[in-house]
Amino acid sequence: MRIALDAMGGDYAPAVNVEGAIEAVIEHGFEVILVGNQEILKGELEAKNYPRPLISIRHSSEVAGMDESTITALRKKKDSSIRVAVNLVKSGEADAVVSAGHSGVAMATALFVLGALPGVARPAIAATMPTLKGPFILIDAGANVDSKPLHLLQFALMGDAYVKAIFQREDPRVGLLGIGEEDIKGNELTKETFKLLKESDINFIGNIEGKDVFTGIADVVVCDGFIGNITLKISEGLADVITKMLKREIADKTTGRLGYLFLKSALRNFRKKTDYAEYGGAPLLGINGTCIIGHGRSTAKAIKNALRLASEFSSKRVAEMIAGEINERIPQSMTRKGKGA
Amino acid sequence: MRIALDAMGGDYAPAVNVEGAIEAVIEHGFEVILVGNQEILKGELEAKNYPRPLISIRHSSEVAGMDESTITALRKKKDSSIRVAVNLVKSGEADAVVSAGHSGVAMATALFVLGALPGVARPAIAATMPTLKGPFILIDAGANVDSKPLHLLQFALMGDAYVKAIFQREDPRVGLLGIGEEDIKGNELTKETFKLLKESDINFIGNIEGKDVFTGIADVVVCDGFIGNITLKISEGLADVITKMLKREIADKTTGRLGYLFLKSALRNFRKKTDYAEYGGAPLLGINGTCIIGHGRSTAKAIKNALRLASEFSSKRVAEMIAGEINERIPQSMTRKGKGA
Repeated sequence: MRIALDAMGGDYAPAVNVEGAIEAVIEHGFEVILVGNQEILKGELEAKNYPRPLISIRHSSEVAGMDESTITALRKKKDSSIRVAVNLVKSGEADAVVSAGHSGVAMATALFVLGALPGVARPAIAATMPTLKGPFILIDAGANVDSKPLHLLQFALMGDAYVKAIFQREDPRVGLLGIGEEDIKGNELTKETFKLLKESDINFIGNIEGKDVFTGIADVVVCDGFIGNITLKISEGLADVITKMLKREIADKTTGRLGYLFLKSALRNFRKKTDYAEYGGAPLLGINGTCIIGHGRSTAKAIKNALRLASEFSSKRVAEMIAGEINERIPQSMTRKGKGA
Repeated sequence: MRIALDAMGGDYAPAVNVEGAIEAVIEHGFEVILVGNQEILKGELEAKNYPRPLISIRHSSEVAGMDESTITALRKKKDSSIRVAVNLVKSGEADAVVSAGHSGVAMATALFVLGALPGVARPAIAATMPTLKGPFILIDAGANVDSKPLHLLQFALMGDAYVKAIFQREDPRVGLLGIGEEDIKGNELTKETFKLLKESDINFIGNIEGKDVFTGIADVVVCDGFIGNITLKISEGLADVITKMLKREIADKTTGRLGYLFLKSALRNFRKKTDYAEYGGAPLLGINGTCIIGHGRSTAKAIKNALRLASEFSSKRVAEMIAGEINERIPQSMTRKGKGA
């Protein structure tokens, strides 16, 4: 197993990327190819202790900036670290790619270079989110906007395959993110998608309202990427704000000091359970290969866990499972008709 | 000032509704007409102490059930408590109406009986949400789905007028809920709406990402009602889950007891700051009158605060202000063109 890491991508790159790669190879024994500026990466690795044969460097002369337009980066920066890393998967030199850089560029590059799986109309991001009863995945967490019902049906099948493979859950419960429990509530997209999911052989549990998303009633929550991205970011933002408000509450008290210590430890454990770094990253499902998108604010631990997820995703052949689900479980007539829609 | 209260609407009706009405008339001195089953309401009031002239009962023989279809309730239950309460506003016997019952039925009834303000294409719900720096409003929080750009422009203007009147904020900062900060990111709806807001004389601060919604950078956050409802419910659900997870963290500790007491008090204060009951309810903006939609789980305090908000909304003539904004600040050509869109 050999994983290409976009070593220049992410807010704290390349330092945490190199650190995360070292932790990953020590813990998991797979190989990592660091892709990026050779001089800088050599410098980062120099004084470190790690099994030398497991980490190599592949030079790339450019980096896709966080503010860059996706189209421009794709067209003009053909020697960017993300592009070279994805190329390694294409050429078979690597089994998977991980990037914590510009997520739009990473997704577009993976789709452009590796292509979509046969039958998949639109690849989608599967983000892992915590609940009281263990994690669920939200798909699409931001790869697409203005999705059509057939796309959401495909997201459901891809999420189903992913959860079976990675979380070892049989017959995952699939819900549709919506605004009412019945099939007559929702917008045009969810009302049409509801019918498709109902007719399919998916374990469809119906619409899931926002208030129930974090109770753990579904393994897969399906939505358009615009709504998925907002859901993801709202949740992150709110968890941050709640933590700050609670800290302020405690600090305001005259009994502050002791209470603050108790709360700090509780908050630390809570943040650990809800930390994106624990999951490492979110796979782009539906492409012909393995691509894990890390959080822009990835720490070394997040990079390590993203690499671990990439290795698991690749060795369990999740992409092949997804291709199988899409082609066996969606009637061909629908795919042909739906593709133009 | 006389406010009609749907005394039968809400999960804990009519007990908390009557209690909230009593607290409101004592605290604020306005009149409340309790609408609902006369016998039951008489029974609820019987042993209570309150200024008798300030509370009266208007009998209605039916209740719109929480599981009822909006259309059926509107067509068949012409003597429901919400219908009779709204009728009192129409006839001029009441200045405003408050309901914590089936929100879809309440909104549809208010729109059907009172009508939309001239020029308003679609009324919208303005929900008040907490941030580190005081509340903002989210509009539309669930009255409409599949909105068009012109509708969102109107939501922005209605929200602007509401925030000026109720929060006394001059030149409110209006943001568009989206998935990227630039105008080129988003879905078809937000990209088109971005242009309209940019061209308007609104204090438009651009797209607001989910992660920034709770930081307090905007006074008005505009979105389609499907996304707004999900945002609202996700936030409520997540705040609940976080509270539960933190309580569990503390309970798990051997040092549990003392820490739990500290945390409980911090959580209580936090919940108070973020409690919907503090705001009472959310107005339906854009109708020809005052209608406040309460939370289904309304407590007596929530009812009291919803009645207070109704009184303030009506006495400040917010509906008239909204009509003014819509007619002065949106070019007539756009309204005519947009209405069919």
